[in-house]
Order: sequence, then C-alpha cells, then structure tokens
Amino acid sequence: MNDREEQERGPSSAVSTSSGTSLNEFDFIRRLRQRASVEAQSTQPQSLILGIGDDAAVIRSANGRDTVVATDLLVEEIDFRRTTVPPYLLGHKALAVSLSDIAAMGARPRWSLISLGLPEEIWQSEFTNNFYNGLFQLAAQYDVQLIGGDTSRTPKQIVVDSIVIGECAADGALKRSGARPGDQIFVTGTLGGAAAGLRLIERGAHLADQNFGANETQVLDQLLLRHLRPEPRVGWGIVLGQENLATAMIDLSDGLSSDLNHICSESNAGALINSSEIPIDNQVIELCGRRALDPLQLALHGGEDFELLFTVHPDRVAKLPRKVDGVGITHIGEISYAGEGVRISEGSRIWELAPGGWKHF
Amino acid sequence: MNDREEQERGPSSAVSTSSGTSLNEFDFIRRLRQRASVEAQSTQPQSLILGIGDDAAVIRSANGRDTVVATDLLVEEIDFRRTTVPPYLLGHKALAVSLSDIAAMGARPRWSLISLGLPEEIWQSEFTNNFYNGLFQLAAQYDVQLIGGDTSRTPKQIVVDSIVIGECAADGALKRSGARPGDQIFVTGTLGGAAAGLRLIERGAHLADQNFGANETQVLDQLLLRHLRPEPRVGWGIVLGQENLATAMIDLSDGLSSDLNHICSESNAGALINSSEIPIDNQVIELCGRRALDPLQLALHGGEDFELLFTVHPDRVAKLPRKVDGVGITHIGEISYAGEGVRISEGSRIWELAPGGWKHF
Repeated sequence: MNDREEQERGPSSAVSTSSGTSLNEFDFIRRLRQRASVEAQSTQPQSLILGIGDDAAVIRSANGRDTVVATDLLVEEIDFRRTTVPPYLLGHKALAVSLSDIAAMGARPRWSLISLGLPEEIWQSEFTNNFYNGLFQLAAQYDVQLIGGDTSRTPKQIVVDSIVIGECAADGALKRSGARPGDQIFVTGTLGGAAAGLRLIERGAHLADQNFGANETQVLDQLLLRHLRPEPRVGWGIVLGQENLATAMIDLSDGLSSDLNHICSESNAGALINSSEIPIDNQVIELCGRRALDPLQLALHGGEDFELLFTVHPDRVAKLPRKVDGVGITHIGEISYAGEGVRISEGSRIWELAPGGWKHF
Repeated sequence: MNDREEQERGPSSAVSTSSGTSLNEFDFIRRLRQRASVEAQSTQPQSLILGIGDDAAVIRSANGRDTVVATDLLVEEIDFRRTTVPPYLLGHKALAVSLSDIAAMGARPRWSLISLGLPEEIWQSEFTNNFYNGLFQLAAQYDVQLIGGDTSRTPKQIVVDSIVIGECAADGALKRSGARPGDQIFVTGTLGGAAAGLRLIERGAHLADQNFGANETQVLDQLLLRHLRPEPRVGWGIVLGQENLATAMIDLSDGLSSDLNHICSESNAGALINSSEIPIDNQVIELCGRRALDPLQLALHGGEDFELLFTVHPDRVAKLPRKVDGVGITHIGEISYAGEGVRISEGSRIWELAPGGWKHF
C-alpha cells in the first residue's frame, strides 16, 4: 500500500543539510517555521493568527475584505526540468505564478503555503535551502508570508503546489467575466520573452552562456530570465483592483490568444486586437530578426509571460496610471459583441484569433 | 525545458470521457465548475463570492471569524498505490485528510481546492470522474464546497494536493500548544485499525476478498476501510472548538506516540497515558489475537487513524458530550510537567513513549 513498512521504527532516518547537521522532517518544519517568522517583517496590520507548525494555519481578514485563493501545481519534466532551472529560481517561480493569479484578481497577496514533494536524493541535497531562498526573496518583495504547506517524499520527480491567499475589497475582485463591448483592452509589459527564453533553453542555452558574444549573452540572459524568473505584476494588480479601473482581468499564463479567448468566453463578448499594437519584447524582435522567425507568433501564443491582460470602460481609460513599479501598459484593442468572435487585425486583414497556447491535456 | 514543444498548435488533443465525448483541459474545468455548483447545497450563509473557473477563488469570512487553512500532499507509490486504492476512495481520502486537519483546529470546514497531477493515460481513463465522485460525496456530508485548484500532467505518478479552508471563532482555533499539566487526555473513536488495514493490503488483501470466510471478510473489509476510507472527526472538531472544551488538539495522522509528542513538545509539557485505557479497535484485537501479534503497537504507532487527540482542563471534563455523530471518546491519560517526559504505563511499569510513527524523511 505504501512504503511505511520499509521504514525503521527506531530513530528517524537522518539526512544531511547545508550546515552539516542531520535533519528529519519534523526538524525541517521547525527550522522553516523559525525562518518564516524571521523573514516576516510585515508593515501591514497583523492578521496572521497561527503560522507553520500546527495542523493548519489561521489568518484573519479585516472586516469587509474578501479572501482570494489561488493554487498552481508545478511538476518536474512537465513544467520544468531539474537540469535547467536552479532551485532558487524554481522557488521564485513557484511563488511568482500564484502571485500572478492573485494580481489577476486585482487583489493584494498576503500569505503563501507550499506543498513540496521531493525524491530522497533531492531532500538530502542543497535543494530545499536554495528553493526557499528564492521563495523568501520574492515573498519579501511583496510582503507575503509563508504560513504553511506540506512535505512528502516522491519516487522520482519534484512537485510543488503553490497556494497564495490574498485580500481585496468586498466584491472588488476583478473576474474574467466583466468585459463589455466598447471596453478597451490593455496589457502590461511586453510579450513573447518567456516563450523565446523557453525555446532557447530547449536548444541548450543557459544563463550567462559564454558561447555567445557579450551583447548576445545579455540578450539571451534577459530572455532566459523571462522564462525562468517571471515577475508577477503585483503592483498593477493592486492598483487596478483598488481603483476599480478594470472591468475584467486575467494573467497571461496560457498565452495572449488563449487568455483573451478566456475573457471573451467568460464575458460572453468578442474582441478585436491590432497586431501592430502588441508590445513584443525588443529582445524577441532582435533574436527573431536574426533568425528569420516571426516574433508575433511568440507574443500571441507563447504563454508564461505573466503579464496582466485587462479591459477598461472607455470613460475610465484616462484614469489609468502610465506606470506602476516601473512597468508600463499598452492599448491593444477593444471588446466587441460575442457574435463577432475574437479577432486580430494585421494591416487591412482581419482573422480569427484561435486559442493557441499551452494545454496540459 | 518542458513539453510544450511537443504540443500540436492545432485543436487541443482530445481525450475520452465516461460519456464518450472528448474533453480537453478547459472543458474539464468547465464541467467541474458546473458539477461543483450543482453539488453545493449549502445551508450556511452564502460566503462564496467566486468559485472554479477564474484565476482564483474568492470567499468571504463572517465578521469576527478566523480563516483556517490546511494542505495535504498525497503522492502515488509513497502515500498510496494505484492498484490497491479505487479512485473514488482516493478522492474521499484526499479530502478526508485535510478535513481532519481542520477538525484538529476546532474549526468548521467550508471550502476545498484540489491540485491534481495526472499521467496522460490516467487522464484518459475513468479516474477523474470516480475521483471526484468520492470527493463530492464526502464534501456533501460536511457541507464543504469545491471552489478551485489546478490540473497538471505528470510523467508517471498521480499526485494530489488537497487544500481545505475552514472557519472558527476569532482566537478560537485549538492549537497543539495549549496543553497544561493536569489537563486530561482524550481520544475519539478507536485506534490501530488503519495501520492493520495497511498491513493487510501490503499482504495482498483487498475489499470483499472472497478468499476468507464471511465473518473474516467483514472484519477485513472494516480494517481495510479504516485505511482506505478514513472518517475525519469533523463533528467532534466543531463541538470542541465551538464550546471551547479542549486546551490542545491534533489529529492522529503520524500515530499516537508521535502526535502526543507533538502536543507535549509544542505545549512544553509531559504526559502519562495508560496502556489499558487505549481504545484499540476490536477488529485489530481479534486479528492480532489469531496471529499472536501485539495490537497495542499498532494503536500506539500505527498512524493514519485520523482520530482526534485532545486535552481538557479538569474542570471542563464533565461538560464533554458522550458522543458526536455516533462517535465516542476515551480518557487515556493526563498532561504532566515537561521534565517528566512523555510516558506510558502498563500495569506497574512505566516507560518513555518515543515517537514511533511515520516520517517521510
């Protein structure tokens, strides 16, 4: 039934840690609890009642606030490879993708829980230390606190389930379903970089690859990092939610074509975007130009850019800030009626924009 | 880097479902959302703002309530085997173990999120339907609603991360750390059944095994189900929390010896329990008697009984109900001072009760 039979009933099997001391599962949780408590330097009103180390975590929402919960499952060999993602970037990314979900709701992230499944040899390595280094660094950037999770052994692959809990004003969450004909469509940052980075990695590139010239190394690194170290648009999510500026929002995890279709499907609306307005990553354009590839395809279908795609009532467009945390936005089109479908214009041509992003099944 | 490259950009790969129609990941989520909405027949005040199908779920706590969050990661080959656990019992168990965590906090479970990682061939089978059948059946029993989660492909193993969110009165959560010398120690139900069931399964037994006589089949099935279909003590958790009857509580997942040590360690206390008072499962006694095994070892160290272990101030003992949902409790000992350690008496002998339960690492 399971492997308990194989376990000795004597002292728990000790494993080596970075400090050279031995560490079992319970010691690990104790240390993680201490670290989570040290890392937490919240400037927000205290609402964590009980963190790591009990059967569950306990939090308290302020009156009149809604609680927003997102989970993201990352599986080795499917969502990442051990050989190409350093553990601290995996820790960063596991948290980043869930922060991005919370941002896409117009909410402020507050708490993180991590369920971590590891093969025995990974548990015995530097992996967990480095994984949590990456996670805590990103958590500190957005004042997010690790409050719980679970740990399990796995036969072979690393699996991470990242749960983030956030808060927004009551009824203030920005759903996918709120877009109406006439609403203007915007996207944060630039697109295509993560997909280009993924393709480079699949072709053997890695960070600070010395096989390229200095300038190309820099371009490469930036693209690789778009894939390996996504930056969730937490600031934009909070601003758009607090100021009630967006009518619908989603984060670009599947790809612009898929995610715009999600908004239109949920909102029972259509959309027309303009290909010339799509903010393609400059490095993607440069790289594709050299290799005679079409950067627009990466920007439309690439996925994992973790930018925010949102719609704004025309009367509210003038109220949008130009930048939040140094990140700008670009107008890319307009919501139309459902019968008109989801379309893209390129010059004088217009065609249907079918979802072309990533699907697990 | 990952398998996206292998994906066709055309129509998403269709998979077969029970109804004979094809189903991709997004269709699956759409159906699950419909089903979760049909299954939800809450008699509680509505506080689900947004369920399955957006970037995150949104819930609202009543004023003056705390939110309690637990996660449990179940990994194939470690926590269960595909060949011995029917999918609907896995769905049941995934939810049950997290409900048990919420019960151990003295909280009422409200919402469930499931992150499910599946190999391609399992996705194409009846697995997901049956898994969610088991999950929804248990969820309905306790008025718990499925509100979100994530789905990923895996190379080989099934992994399930079960997140349950519950509620309790502000500052009403029952921690592991509240036990004080003189508090009386109680446990719900009976112990050792799950461990006995696991051992039987490891020796090749399965449900309604016809190789045994009718009476022994019944005994076997009951023990197997103690392992395969644990019943979380949700009712007891709510009563003990609401009435503020317990000073500390934990659920018996690791085993009585481990979990009592957790309470004592967190409470900076010792304990003395009486072996003759431990409520060993009758079927375990019967089975062990026939095979000259010691049932007490299974009850002390077996784990996964998912009964509740709790401590009560002596003045409050008389206020304890005899039964909740038909499940009784048994007094097994008393909390003492930290320096006295965690001990067990058997007749006139007393010895240290070292943690002997399951550890992943």
